[in-house]
Amino acid sequence: MRAVNDRPDRAGSGEVLGPRDALSEPRFTGVRSFARLPVVERLEEVGGVDCAVLGIPWDGGTSFRPGARFGPEAIRSASILLRPYNQARGTRVFGALSCIDHGDAPTVPGYIEHTLARIEAHLEPIARAGVRTIAMGGDHSVTLAELRAIAAVHGPLGLVQFDAHSDLWDRYNEQPLNHGTFARRAIEEGVVDPARSIQLGLRGPLYEAADLKLGPKLGVEQLACEELVSLRAGEIGRRVAAVAGSGPAFLSFDVDCLDPAFCPGTGTPEPGGLTSREALAALRSLDAIGFVGFDVVEVSPAYDGPGQITALFAANAIFEMLTLLAAR
Amino acid sequence: MRAVNDRPDRAGSGEVLGPRDALSEPRFTGVRSFARLPVVERLEEVGGVDCAVLGIPWDGGTSFRPGARFGPEAIRSASILLRPYNQARGTRVFGALSCIDHGDAPTVPGYIEHTLARIEAHLEPIARAGVRTIAMGGDHSVTLAELRAIAAVHGPLGLVQFDAHSDLWDRYNEQPLNHGTFARRAIEEGVVDPARSIQLGLRGPLYEAADLKLGPKLGVEQLACEELVSLRAGEIGRRVAAVAGSGPAFLSFDVDCLDPAFCPGTGTPEPGGLTSREALAALRSLDAIGFVGFDVVEVSPAYDGPGQITALFAANAIFEMLTLLAAR
Amino acid sequence: MRAVNDRPDRAGSGEVLGPRDALSEPRFTGVRSFARLPVVERLEEVGGVDCAVLGIPWDGGTSFRPGARFGPEAIRSASILLRPYNQARGTRVFGALSCIDHGDAPTVPGYIEHTLARIEAHLEPIARAGVRTIAMGGDHSVTLAELRAIAAVHGPLGLVQFDAHSDLWDRYNEQPLNHGTFARRAIEEGVVDPARSIQLGLRGPLYEAADLKLGPKLGVEQLACEELVSLRAGEIGRRVAAVAGSGPAFLSFDVDCLDPAFCPGTGTPEPGGLTSREALAALRSLDAIGFVGFDVVEVSPAYDGPGQITALFAANAIFEMLTLLAAR
Amino acid sequence: MRAVNDRPDRAGSGEVLGPRDALSEPRFTGVRSFARLPVVERLEEVGGVDCAVLGIPWDGGTSFRPGARFGPEAIRSASILLRPYNQARGTRVFGALSCIDHGDAPTVPGYIEHTLARIEAHLEPIARAGVRTIAMGGDHSVTLAELRAIAAVHGPLGLVQFDAHSDLWDRYNEQPLNHGTFARRAIEEGVVDPARSIQLGLRGPLYEAADLKLGPKLGVEQLACEELVSLRAGEIGRRVAAVAGSGPAFLSFDVDCLDPAFCPGTGTPEPGGLTSREALAALRSLDAIGFVGFDVVEVSPAYDGPGQITALFAANAIFEMLTLLAAR
Amino acid sequence: MRAVNDRPDRAGSGEVLGPRDALSEPRFTGVRSFARLPVVERLEEVGGVDCAVLGIPWDGGTSFRPGARFGPEAIRSASILLRPYNQARGTRVFGALSCIDHGDAPTVPGYIEHTLARIEAHLEPIARAGVRTIAMGGDHSVTLAELRAIAAVHGPLGLVQFDAHSDLWDRYNEQPLNHGTFARRAIEEGVVDPARSIQLGLRGPLYEAADLKLGPKLGVEQLACEELVSLRAGEIGRRVAAVAGSGPAFLSFDVDCLDPAFCPGTGTPEPGGLTSREALAALRSLDAIGFVGFDVVEVSPAYDGPGQITALFAANAIFEMLTLLAAR
Amino acid sequence: MRAVNDRPDRAGSGEVLGPRDALSEPRFTGVRSFARLPVVERLEEVGGVDCAVLGIPWDGGTSFRPGARFGPEAIRSASILLRPYNQARGTRVFGALSCIDHGDAPTVPGYIEHTLARIEAHLEPIARAGVRTIAMGGDHSVTLAELRAIAAVHGPLGLVQFDAHSDLWDRYNEQPLNHGTFARRAIEEGVVDPARSIQLGLRGPLYEAADLKLGPKLGVEQLACEELVSLRAGEIGRRVAAVAGSGPAFLSFDVDCLDPAFCPGTGTPEPGGLTSREALAALRSLDAIGFVGFDVVEVSPAYDGPGQITALFAANAIFEMLTLLAAR
Repeated sequence: MRAVNDRPDRAGSGEVLGPRDALSEPRFTGVRSFARLPVVERLEEVGGVDCAVLGIPWDGGTSFRPGARFGPEAIRSASILLRPYNQARGTRVFGALSCIDHGDAPTVPGYIEHTLARIEAHLEPIARAGVRTIAMGGDHSVTLAELRAIAAVHGPLGLVQFDAHSDLWDRYNEQPLNHGTFARRAIEEGVVDPARSIQLGLRGPLYEAADLKLGPKLGVEQLACEELVSLRAGEIGRRVAAVAGSGPAFLSFDVDCLDPAFCPGTGTPEPGGLTSREALAALRSLDAIGFVGFDVVEVSPAYDGPGQITALFAANAIFEMLTLLAAR
Repeated sequence: MRAVNDRPDRAGSGEVLGPRDALSEPRFTGVRSFARLPVVERLEEVGGVDCAVLGIPWDGGTSFRPGARFGPEAIRSASILLRPYNQARGTRVFGALSCIDHGDAPTVPGYIEHTLARIEAHLEPIARAGVRTIAMGGDHSVTLAELRAIAAVHGPLGLVQFDAHSDLWDRYNEQPLNHGTFARRAIEEGVVDPARSIQLGLRGPLYEAADLKLGPKLGVEQLACEELVSLRAGEIGRRVAAVAGSGPAFLSFDVDCLDPAFCPGTGTPEPGGLTSREALAALRSLDAIGFVGFDVVEVSPAYDGPGQITALFAANAIFEMLTLLAAR
Repeated sequence: MRAVNDRPDRAGSGEVLGPRDALSEPRFTGVRSFARLPVVERLEEVGGVDCAVLGIPWDGGTSFRPGARFGPEAIRSASILLRPYNQARGTRVFGALSCIDHGDAPTVPGYIEHTLARIEAHLEPIARAGVRTIAMGGDHSVTLAELRAIAAVHGPLGLVQFDAHSDLWDRYNEQPLNHGTFARRAIEEGVVDPARSIQLGLRGPLYEAADLKLGPKLGVEQLACEELVSLRAGEIGRRVAAVAGSGPAFLSFDVDCLDPAFCPGTGTPEPGGLTSREALAALRSLDAIGFVGFDVVEVSPAYDGPGQITALFAANAIFEMLTLLAAR
Repeated sequence: MRAVNDRPDRAGSGEVLGPRDALSEPRFTGVRSFARLPVVERLEEVGGVDCAVLGIPWDGGTSFRPGARFGPEAIRSASILLRPYNQARGTRVFGALSCIDHGDAPTVPGYIEHTLARIEAHLEPIARAGVRTIAMGGDHSVTLAELRAIAAVHGPLGLVQFDAHSDLWDRYNEQPLNHGTFARRAIEEGVVDPARSIQLGLRGPLYEAADLKLGPKLGVEQLACEELVSLRAGEIGRRVAAVAGSGPAFLSFDVDCLDPAFCPGTGTPEPGGLTSREALAALRSLDAIGFVGFDVVEVSPAYDGPGQITALFAANAIFEMLTLLAAR
Repeated sequence: MRAVNDRPDRAGSGEVLGPRDALSEPRFTGVRSFARLPVVERLEEVGGVDCAVLGIPWDGGTSFRPGARFGPEAIRSASILLRPYNQARGTRVFGALSCIDHGDAPTVPGYIEHTLARIEAHLEPIARAGVRTIAMGGDHSVTLAELRAIAAVHGPLGLVQFDAHSDLWDRYNEQPLNHGTFARRAIEEGVVDPARSIQLGLRGPLYEAADLKLGPKLGVEQLACEELVSLRAGEIGRRVAAVAGSGPAFLSFDVDCLDPAFCPGTGTPEPGGLTSREALAALRSLDAIGFVGFDVVEVSPAYDGPGQITALFAANAIFEMLTLLAAR
Repeated sequence: MRAVNDRPDRAGSGEVLGPRDALSEPRFTGVRSFARLPVVERLEEVGGVDCAVLGIPWDGGTSFRPGARFGPEAIRSASILLRPYNQARGTRVFGALSCIDHGDAPTVPGYIEHTLARIEAHLEPIARAGVRTIAMGGDHSVTLAELRAIAAVHGPLGLVQFDAHSDLWDRYNEQPLNHGTFARRAIEEGVVDPARSIQLGLRGPLYEAADLKLGPKLGVEQLACEELVSLRAGEIGRRVAAVAGSGPAFLSFDVDCLDPAFCPGTGTPEPGGLTSREALAALRSLDAIGFVGFDVVEVSPAYDGPGQITALFAANAIFEMLTLLAAR
């Protein structure tokens, strides 16, 4: 059985689910799904899905500006500009890969523990069905739930984390769950293998000098923004591959690794970050890693301005993630 | 067969399509369809639909501020706040009425004639299937296409038009199609019966004194804003019913009949208009009219501010239209 | 001992804490405290305080648009326009009443139960010291914590609630704490006496017909917006006084009782609400009630537009609350 | 000799300067002049001008939000929606009256005394030429310069001032010139005759009870907002006429007399003000007064939101002023 | 005869038309013309004009975000910051070159064919008079009309196009005219000589791999963004000169060749673009080309944020184009 | 005696004043002071203060966009994201340095001479007390007052000025005080020693070629933006140190030295400026200079967009200035 809104984009065959064709129907037409992909909420109704893009609307874990609950809506809205072919990589993405918009995971405002449990329960069956997920956050605390779900299927994951912040702090306000603690919790719980993990783009003021030792102590490689931007894209890819190895890995992209000029619509912006060119090139360099899950988090549209350039960048980051899958 | 995203809101039965329940899943969850209704693009796949809400993303006919092509997206986004029961009318709407979001009609940027033809072709089969449509504009030129499609099924229609402007002008820039000429064209083409038509809320500067005679000359009743606000809601309902009679009628609601304080996000705002209370009361008073089609037009989100109050009002106006259908 | 920034506004005496004088120093000068009052975080350092205005920065309980955590900041920013004398009431407010800005109550993002407990613990000593509090929300769930703290001192409270929504629902997403359930919880916990409580301004779509019976069932008087606006201000005051009687009462003002044209910056806006004139007149009519606590909630500045008119209205609503205290 | 961009709007005759015709050329075409009138900076180059609309870009006298220096630009931008015929009054405005956009008066940022002198010098020759001016402010301090210039020609003027504030304060920061002191200075200087002056729409907190006596002390009639809105438009007109009498008068309209919902883009907004319908009706009621000058002040576009509804209202207020001239 | 608002900027002589002097009259003073140049709509009234800057307010050809009809207004508004001397080039621009603001070309909303014909008819006489035009778009479809008009005078033109998109697609929605097809139409019509044409800055997702062959097939040189940013400015100038040769050429600058961080206010933004420094340097490198016409297109102010940085960049790009003319 | 809100951030000792701890109380809690430092308006009440951050709310000297009077409020609001430790420099800032928020200097709207005198009188005692000041502007004219006050204590100062403009012009509108003339006045008055002064980041159109000679003529070193960005950070530091020598110096940072993509919220933006990475690196390179005063000016929040990235950058620039002090 096929999805209801399922006219694939010039795919030639009913087997591959892809976006509607913007050349025959203006791109601003229709209910906003990611890249105008068919919305399929019951995976069992369609076969052969390679990748499910889904939203995780949650901002209860943010320590500064909320609004990431509307991140999925904004990314979907901006993503209607995407086209099927990746010019920079020379890769056909839609058409090659069978993709769906899988709707949103459920959350519970005010209750972070319940929320993470709901998200995990929502994602595990998808991972178990062999479908790769790309989640649209949500603040960074949702990644913990994603990691739990996917590690339950694939075992401990290498974590490749683009971020201005390490998110390795222990507690905020005496509580353990927060967008600034997710990575530490994931390591403590064993769903992330620190030895195969790397954080890229770190910068900005810290609480104390001891914060700099959190990565080494927990066994996570760290690449500060200053060093990251001194590398060519190919070197970045090699550095990440050297850490992540050949095992299953998760790519978590916090848009605050970009400078606020490029991604103003985020929860905890830090000046001095990546440009969009640098960030896209870094993503494109990761083609040797065996990612089994992805997310783009911390898009907060109320702070993004009328051009919604943060959401637009996030949509393109997801397109690069899809390309990583398609290019294999 | 049922739609994919079809968990009706506590309807009790699989037959009635309604919105997802916001009490069990936050309302900000999921792809944005109108009121979180199931998206059904192929009417033949579901039976017993009473009403289809659909978008007409078009702003090529506007003489001032464009952007109404994003009106449907904005109204859908705001409509997730709607709940099933109309407190003011004491009417159960969703659950009583089987409703869908029917996606968007296709348009062709830059080509108004092709666009209107596409819209008409899209709508006529729905009307023929006995489903009532509520269109989310788009600028007011789209109403001409709606009227053509519905009149093809139901014959000439009474037009009940809330608007700051009569839209009875002849040409702009020597051309016949525009958001300021649609009502005249509809009368000339015979798809609107002027004797059963009324325009409410007219105000603002005109081109010349002769403009005041366009309504009388074409046989359309007109109620200037000043007089409209002097009437109680019941009287408005009676005045409209006296004109529209018992034949098939179309309700076209241009949000610029409200004051810009209430609806700033519109193409040609005019100070001195209705409040939202007055407008909602007027809509609620129209329960005696046999409407076979509806629209809410001229929502231009880029001019609406971060609160998107114009889109929110439009969503509520549509809810009142649904109530008119449900209360019959 | 006196506060550091404590130059009272022409008060004539060092005993009365009031705002800085905007005639001798531009009002846009200085750290933003409410109405430019002295910031005093340790009540014991100053004596004779009549009223403490404080913030409760929290939006974890909202079901739609977050951002009320920045409500206190925005209200403080707008409040610098306030002057000491209430022209409409003929009452000297600052100068007559000794007032401070008491800073903000602590909260814990993501943990609503911990948050409410923190707020309650923060407020109870103030109430116990005989100081009246006016809280700047925060979403409406914070009112539950305020009621708990104040009822611990004064016993069960009459609740006078201006709101588009009754907030009497039972659960959202199976959980009990939320901005839509606070009033029910407060009644169940006995901190609100329903027999002395009234809700004003209710409107908008409901979940089901049964929602209309929640008020009667729980014993709370309800005045729908439609009826409210048909009353003159004096009548409103008498209706409220008849319910609230002479016992201790709490005045909770949700800015969504105003129309979105007047208060767009809020979490769950509903078209068709009060104007600012109606709302201010209603507040002024409540001079017979023995309020022992107040709040203004649901100001969400990211949705308020550059004029920040919601925050400005909220600042003026607080000024009317101060006037109620000063006029006694 | 005629102005360069001088195609009058269907005026039939070269003698009457009016706007370009928006029916033959879209209204969003061309350099923004008020109502698309010809820009004529040298009055001597054209004859028979009845009215000159001009800008006074200045915000150095504001006590809160600056930005009124861009008020003229914003009003011009919004005014392109105006059409020639006043429907509410049944008056042909453009075409009947020969009007120009006279550009802007010069100002000197940071130097209020020099600025007022420059404005006065700029305006006096126009007044002397018998041309009526309608100034687009600028903060309210510019009115003092206008009054000086026009009184130099016509003698002491009756002042009809729509405003939330009396602007009768003596000094701010020990200095005499400010948007809150202009009316007092004008009376002290003898350019305004208090006995023929009235202020309408006063409201909001004051500095002290004594402020209420400033009007009576200086001999100016005052109509608080609360009383103003209780009058029908006709009564307002009669009340004003009774004060202003038959001598030369000046109409100064501060947009903050409207509620911030209708005019958010202003320097010192006060909740509880007029609606746009009330304000337009009040303006229309003033047809018995012998106005020799007009202004609309305190439009601050940076606080106005994307719909720029304050500027739009201001453009329409000017249109009503033009109608007062045309209807004589 | 001279224009009405014609006080040239310290030019010393009445012969050279230039901007008003911002040192003697604040730059925010006066009707907004480009760089505060005199507005001259009838070329025959002034002699010796070198360059006419004019607007083409049109957005009917855009496939995503409309609003470019307000591009000319926004560019004019931002351009008042320009000063006469180009520091980076060491070139006196205004004062050396006699320049005017020539107002706007007429358009017809909804009718792209009529619109292009109107624009062409408007521009051809200017080109024939030997005046260089710099058009402020409008979406990119307007360039086709410009090319038709200028090629009618100068013969087939070399096209130097800065753009994220090649605009070589054949049809959208089965129709030939659109902002994504203009360059193909221009080649097909023979108004552009592909052998002397080059496109710079191409990037972003494509519809299919075959899109990459459109340039080679049509004979147009293409420089992808990735390669472009690897070149020093001088190399870019040489590469362009090698293609464009010494014949007449047209420089079309689509602001979406910049990254959305630098130009968010545009119709179809693509992340990963040029910085403003790179773009300005590239423009400055083109001094060897014989440009006979210029435009800057796709400025859509409603998406540009309050700083209007896209419009500001566009104003500066035009200043560089003027410098290319002045430096000859 | 200690300040009222004085819980220092994990400082261990009551002697060092620092920010509240965001790990134990959310950072969005509390009255907005710079970096959540204690507000101390009377220096004599606390001992051992190393550095006072204070606001100078003034925009009367701006030649284009006003609003810098709200710069201090916006910088304080964004600064709550700062943490105590500078990762890039490896320096503990808060905790090492005893810092306060010293409130705002008084100003007088409309009276630039009075304003500068008030500011100077406010600052001199602080400088005399040996406390370093970091002022948050305000437009650039406030720097003249700062220089006067600090030079009165320390003698003529070397000026290190980051700026797009030299601010060496003589007069605007015949008047001497303005944000474009402050540096010239300071040299003329002898409070700045030109031989130890350098301006970095100059770019954009000038009034005339002679403007390029103002620096050399007055003896100030100038480094155009183009050259500045070609240097590595270390070289910048050396170039500045070579000029400034070992005497007392003042660091004035105008945010318009950054590109408008990074700092859109400013009074006179110029495309083609520094990135935030370049600017932060340049600031960090200045550790050899003996700065006795600092400011960050020209933050105009109304033009900054909802992300307020200009204010955020300014807060981080101040953090780097604090680091320069802490690292000594």
